[in-house]
Amino acid sequence: MADELPTPDVTEDRDDAYALDEKTVHAIQAAVEADDAETLVRLVDHMHAADIADVLEQFDDATRQHAVTLLGSSFDGELLTELDEGIREDVIDALSPEVLSEAVRDLESDDVVDLIEDLGKGQQAAILDVLETSDRAAVELSMSWPENSAGRLMQREVVSAPAHWTVGQAIDFMRESEDLPDDFYHLVLVDPRYHPVGHVTLGKLMSSRRNVKLADITEESFRTIPADQDEEDVAYAFNQYHLISAPVVDSDGRLAGVITIDDAMIVLDEEHEEDILRLAGVGDESLADRTLAIARRRFPWLFVNLITAILASLVISQFEATIAAIVALAVLMPIVASMGGNAGTQSMTVAVRALATRDLTRSNALRVIRREVVAGLLNGLVFAVVMGVIGVIWFGTPMLGVVIGVAMVINLAVAGLAGVGVPLVLDRVGIDPALASGAFVTTVTDVVGFFAFLGLAAAWLI
Amino acid sequence: MADELPTPDVTEDRDDAYALDEKTVHAIQAAVEADDAETLVRLVDHMHAADIADVLEQFDDATRQHAVTLLGSSFDGELLTELDEGIREDVIDALSPEVLSEAVRDLESDDVVDLIEDLGKGQQAAILDVLETSDRAAVELSMSWPENSAGRLMQREVVSAPAHWTVGQAIDFMRESEDLPDDFYHLVLVDPRYHPVGHVTLGKLMSSRRNVKLADITEESFRTIPADQDEEDVAYAFNQYHLISAPVVDSDGRLAGVITIDDAMIVLDEEHEEDILRLAGVGDESLADRTLAIARRRFPWLFVNLITAILASLVISQFEATIAAIVALAVLMPIVASMGGNAGTQSMTVAVRALATRDLTRSNALRVIRREVVAGLLNGLVFAVVMGVIGVIWFGTPMLGVVIGVAMVINLAVAGLAGVGVPLVLDRVGIDPALASGAFVTTVTDVVGFFAFLGLAAAWLI
Repeated sequence: MADELPTPDVTEDRDDAYALDEKTVHAIQAAVEADDAETLVRLVDHMHAADIADVLEQFDDATRQHAVTLLGSSFDGELLTELDEGIREDVIDALSPEVLSEAVRDLESDDVVDLIEDLGKGQQAAILDVLETSDRAAVELSMSWPENSAGRLMQREVVSAPAHWTVGQAIDFMRESEDLPDDFYHLVLVDPRYHPVGHVTLGKLMSSRRNVKLADITEESFRTIPADQDEEDVAYAFNQYHLISAPVVDSDGRLAGVITIDDAMIVLDEEHEEDILRLAGVGDESLADRTLAIARRRFPWLFVNLITAILASLVISQFEATIAAIVALAVLMPIVASMGGNAGTQSMTVAVRALATRDLTRSNALRVIRREVVAGLLNGLVFAVVMGVIGVIWFGTPMLGVVIGVAMVINLAVAGLAGVGVPLVLDRVGIDPALASGAFVTTVTDVVGFFAFLGLAAAWLI
Repeated sequence: MADELPTPDVTEDRDDAYALDEKTVHAIQAAVEADDAETLVRLVDHMHAADIADVLEQFDDATRQHAVTLLGSSFDGELLTELDEGIREDVIDALSPEVLSEAVRDLESDDVVDLIEDLGKGQQAAILDVLETSDRAAVELSMSWPENSAGRLMQREVVSAPAHWTVGQAIDFMRESEDLPDDFYHLVLVDPRYHPVGHVTLGKLMSSRRNVKLADITEESFRTIPADQDEEDVAYAFNQYHLISAPVVDSDGRLAGVITIDDAMIVLDEEHEEDILRLAGVGDESLADRTLAIARRRFPWLFVNLITAILASLVISQFEATIAAIVALAVLMPIVASMGGNAGTQSMTVAVRALATRDLTRSNALRVIRREVVAGLLNGLVFAVVMGVIGVIWFGTPMLGVVIGVAMVINLAVAGLAGVGVPLVLDRVGIDPALASGAFVTTVTDVVGFFAFLGLAAAWLI
């Protein structure tokens, strides 16, 4: 095994370290198209479910369905949880009832919850039906917590012990347990009311003498998570406090389950993805979505943009006479608006991120706004000089250079103000700033940019 | 403890679940301004280092320096690793040599590496000097690996055992070890050449009988990471394969250290942060940076935007005569460019993300491009009709409606093409697509938007 270690040349081709091997993808596709189930199963046999899912996501719908059918009983349950949500339903539909029930029975309760929560009622019932009674109860209990809550994220399987036990008692108890979870990192200590009061890492447990009291080797980092807490906050807590696992408590403070860092990492990844896409005016979408779905999802954002663009046009239309007199204004005006839009997007992105990481708060909001406005003014002054000179050289009218310069300073300062102000206000009124800031900020910079430039031109040039 | 659990109302006020308490921030600030070291130490005593760092980041420079001086010997080493890189140097300068050496000695080797790698030579030497010989050797060995590599990320402290041992031997060995790491999750099995050949979770170890062979209870998920692998790829592997910890090997395949998921999560978070900021044309910056630094860092991006905006203006200037004849064109032209820019940004963001997650590959690039172009065409057609009608109503010229409609269809289809094509090409030639795509894509949509609209107008309206 050690001889097959990846060779050091991976760093030369950095992004490809874990990229899917194109040859493998083609070989799998060829096997599917040739109806060759044996080769297909052999090809995917040694692959991680996450990689198989990535290959399936690359196929078109028909090829994917065909691949799933060909895999038959070799279809692994983990594959379902790894698949993109957008195509999960179709894959489940392509599975025979026997294969589906076999696949689902292998999964842990939190994976089943993750799998079924986005499915339609019919598919949900079909999957719940094949679970054993105790598993079904665990899944249904998790599903009773709100969507995107810690209760949905946690696994019900917890290893806990009375707080007064010793290391030896705990180890003996674990040796005798039949069904310890696959992955757990802490032994949770509970009081007689089943409230978690601390936890011990397995490493500490293993390196301590048998007569040591569990209560004496608990971790300082211990904190509990309410089951109804938003999963975004859970991910934040894991990242901020470097948690590995944390017990989840119900509204009575009783131990209800445990969340591990790998689940928190997935949420963190999803939240980031959502923020990036929302900032660009794209909703929840993935590469596996169909063209029509993509077009329909992006439409509302483009429509909002159309309205803001028309607003800007209305401002321009107030100065038709000015533009008719000096056509150079039409040539130069997009520069002022574009620079403002870019500067505004810069400030806005920093502000949206800082709100997400809790770095931008009421305590420092004013200082951050002042900083952004001054930074905008400074860059505005530099670009005012640059554009002023270009304006004079290009059109030979010194006053035109002054107009574009002054408009630039005004718009870049306003961009700094709007870039921080808009996300702050949206956050205060409870709207996700990543979702809506962009449209407002560019409206402000477009309107102010055109108005300042054309207004000054009307006043000073005509 | 259980009685102090957060109450369920955190979900009502979702984003504030782990927000800094404004009162605490003000109390700390007041204590610092009143020179009241005793109150300050009492206030921060029960706080997590990550939260104290967040408070310090909110202060202005003078207050922060003062706070650090007042904390004196209560300054915790962990605080240094939690502080934003931008202000770390200043804080280190504010610490007395005694406090600094005390603070650094508490840290694990990977934290010291993370701390010193961005410092100047002088500060680096000062910190290395206070370490004990063995710790310094471990830090210097990590520092010999390239920046942002697995070798820098790993901790040198690994718990390993010969592959032929039994569970009982492993547990006895761990009980007798004096200095096991604080956090570890796997026992790494090595062959006689010290090559890692598998690993066993502590949970499995604890629940197995003493006479079970370690080789029989190894994890299937085992994989090793080359020490020179880029940390971005390491984070990807942890996320993709749900790893908890993975052994790092040197170029001879020998066990060199171990990376745990909490370190991978921090890298994942940083990479996302970088992508979001780069997509918005903001380099590495943080809320703690000073105004002048902010203005200077954003300048290059705005300068690139200025050049692309001037390019677009040059296109417009080719049609000055057309605009002079029909001023309505100047009013409407920003709409076509703006819609193209937005649609292009949507496609581009999806493509940049898909490249980062290895979902967009050579195998499916053509299908994704076709999908984006068709989606652009579809939305283009809808908006062509909308804008055509608006154009007719607003300006009473049916042909103007046709011109803006056709220009809209062209620009939205081009936006889809450029949105995917530009990141793909940049990625192929080894440039980070998050960094440079935006400028290229909006240049294309601006130039095509103005050219199509004004060109068609010149051809059909005059």
